[in-house]
Amino acid sequence: MQTSDDYRVPGFLANGIHTGIKTDGGRDLALIYSARPATAAGVFTTNCFKAAPVLIDQERILSGMAHAVIANSGVANAATGPEGVADALAVSRAASAELGIADETVLVASTGVIGHRLPLRKITGGVKKLVAGLHAGGIPDAEAGIMTTDRFPKIAYRKGGIGTKEVTLCGIAKGAGMIQPNMATMLAFIMTDAAIARDALDRIFRRSIAGSFNAISVDGCMSTNDTAVILANGLAGNPEIKRGSRYLGRFWELLSDLLSELARALVRDGEGATKVIEITVTEAKTHRDAQRIAYAVANSNLVKTAFFGEDPNWGRIISAAGSLGIDLPADRVCLFLEDVPLFAVGKGIGGREEELSGIMKRPEIRMRLALGMGCRSWTVCTSDLTFDYVKINAHYHT
Amino acid sequence: MQTSDDYRVPGFLANGIHTGIKTDGGRDLALIYSARPATAAGVFTTNCFKAAPVLIDQERILSGMAHAVIANSGVANAATGPEGVADALAVSRAASAELGIADETVLVASTGVIGHRLPLRKITGGVKKLVAGLHAGGIPDAEAGIMTTDRFPKIAYRKGGIGTKEVTLCGIAKGAGMIQPNMATMLAFIMTDAAIARDALDRIFRRSIAGSFNAISVDGCMSTNDTAVILANGLAGNPEIKRGSRYLGRFWELLSDLLSELARALVRDGEGATKVIEITVTEAKTHRDAQRIAYAVANSNLVKTAFFGEDPNWGRIISAAGSLGIDLPADRVCLFLEDVPLFAVGKGIGGREEELSGIMKRPEIRMRLALGMGCRSWTVCTSDLTFDYVKINAHYHT
Repeated sequence: MQTSDDYRVPGFLANGIHTGIKTDGGRDLALIYSARPATAAGVFTTNCFKAAPVLIDQERILSGMAHAVIANSGVANAATGPEGVADALAVSRAASAELGIADETVLVASTGVIGHRLPLRKITGGVKKLVAGLHAGGIPDAEAGIMTTDRFPKIAYRKGGIGTKEVTLCGIAKGAGMIQPNMATMLAFIMTDAAIARDALDRIFRRSIAGSFNAISVDGCMSTNDTAVILANGLAGNPEIKRGSRYLGRFWELLSDLLSELARALVRDGEGATKVIEITVTEAKTHRDAQRIAYAVANSNLVKTAFFGEDPNWGRIISAAGSLGIDLPADRVCLFLEDVPLFAVGKGIGGREEELSGIMKRPEIRMRLALGMGCRSWTVCTSDLTFDYVKINAHYHT
Repeated sequence: MQTSDDYRVPGFLANGIHTGIKTDGGRDLALIYSARPATAAGVFTTNCFKAAPVLIDQERILSGMAHAVIANSGVANAATGPEGVADALAVSRAASAELGIADETVLVASTGVIGHRLPLRKITGGVKKLVAGLHAGGIPDAEAGIMTTDRFPKIAYRKGGIGTKEVTLCGIAKGAGMIQPNMATMLAFIMTDAAIARDALDRIFRRSIAGSFNAISVDGCMSTNDTAVILANGLAGNPEIKRGSRYLGRFWELLSDLLSELARALVRDGEGATKVIEITVTEAKTHRDAQRIAYAVANSNLVKTAFFGEDPNWGRIISAAGSLGIDLPADRVCLFLEDVPLFAVGKGIGGREEELSGIMKRPEIRMRLALGMGCRSWTVCTSDLTFDYVKINAHYHT
């Protein structure tokens, strides 16, 4: 088991404090700082109603460089118009001034309720203390500072050799609801001391996200604030990873693995979730078909409530798969729960009810839907739909 | 208030009995019979995994004629392979033999759990009694025979003049969960004594369904059994309604109105629903955009739980609308709850919280999202997402 002491990345300092946005006394403002300007890449929500900090970061990330990230929880600063952008810029300025770095090298992020202005005085008033408290072991505090309805912190950590050097990666994330499509109400900040060229980082980060954060779903909703950012400060001194470099694959592996761990943690902590369900669609004609069907099953409320009820209701699964207008050969489609076949040749397969009932009680369950049409596949992780999901979301007030 | 005596359509007899499929003693087998072969049209699920009775009806409806409809609740006879088709044919044969009519003029329908074979002995054993009990006032009994998790019967009734004659329309429906896309786990049977040509009936029925059953959503799931059938026996003696006839519009109006009443009743009785929410998207570039956005809002679990929590959380509404990849002008989009503006010029509009809180307590709430892009619009009705939805669907076991 890793202790919080393990969550250190050479050249990175972090902190998280309470400024009064959260009424329960929890940390609500986080800062990540790299000892030297880092190569940076970012992936953001594709929602048309982008939050103010997303609009700012999308511009700033174009430089391929960032020095710090400041993020608050509790208020999303989304749908706040030009005033919201001005607020986010004010937060950035307060941080850059206190850190003594160029303002454009600060990235900003927010998560929480949509439509409220940032409590600017609380935030800027806290920046001095936030900066003063920066320390190498502060990553878990920063994580605490970005959590909202999350029930547990999500921190992942990897070390690996690149040439003769060891590189370190550490990622923090917050999520809970609104996972999929295309990331969660999700903030994810990845720190690494690897030396990597900007275009290689950008490319590899996007690819790793496609197979991790973009392959999960809690409720099929998409946030206005989704932000995933990676900072690579190069302090590991490894030979710079470039496109075509033989170390590219190795770094990709480390990063993908790290992001997948965070993504799975987001699903496990899906609002109200009691189970993680891994849905793999195989034998599709195209990746797109496999993906659409996997998501249709993952986002079906009837499927999700069946898993909560621990009922292997395969009828709801095939019904969801069949509802997209993709012409499936009903008599060739096979459905498996773990290794137990449930449906084949156009009908249900009985006889292993006891085994199935045991599988349905597990906290992590895999299902596989083979379409019998081609050779493409896609996997999506989702959670069940529970009383607590309704409770959390009916009572999370504006 | 109409009593059950009102639900009579000249030339139609109906009945519903308990045969033992439902364990609570409720009616589970329904029959509708027209004194003479009726002009018929049908619309069926587009799910790839069509239930056996749907496969049969799709063939039979091609003749444009039907004499009777027999339907059971409790078992859907879906995903039952060739045996399921044989079972459904056996039910049809039992009915046609007892009624003394041609077998191909019987339509069959089932609703209930997927993947179970029909309890054939119970059903065919009940047919004699079912036929013997046919009576002009039997429509409410037939409705009871097709209900599953429905909390109340859905019967709609219209009379109207066509030329110098009066025509009668009566429709029964069952629904509850799995409404949208493209109809519910829904059975709907419409009876009318109007005289109408087959192609006119088919066309007008499809159009009326587009604006009624296909404009509602409970949980975004699509059933394997959706069936909507209309039988027109011509006994009203009106001048036959044809394409191009001046009575076509009048009949369309009556039918649309009837179907809309049934559709709205399906939403009101959505599983666990406490509210009906009418979502109108206006000023879209295309109908398709308006429809997609209306459904994205209607099917957003975050929006649905917010309504259950009586919270005017407009952030979730615009976030759902913005998540489809349709390029919305964030600063031109306006959102209204009833007549209260919530969002405009890229940000929230405060100041009428008390009024909004009153609106959110109503059982029926309208919202309007004006996109500022064009002149197309679409309306979808949906229900909220509640503890009871989860309860019903987590415990409705296979």
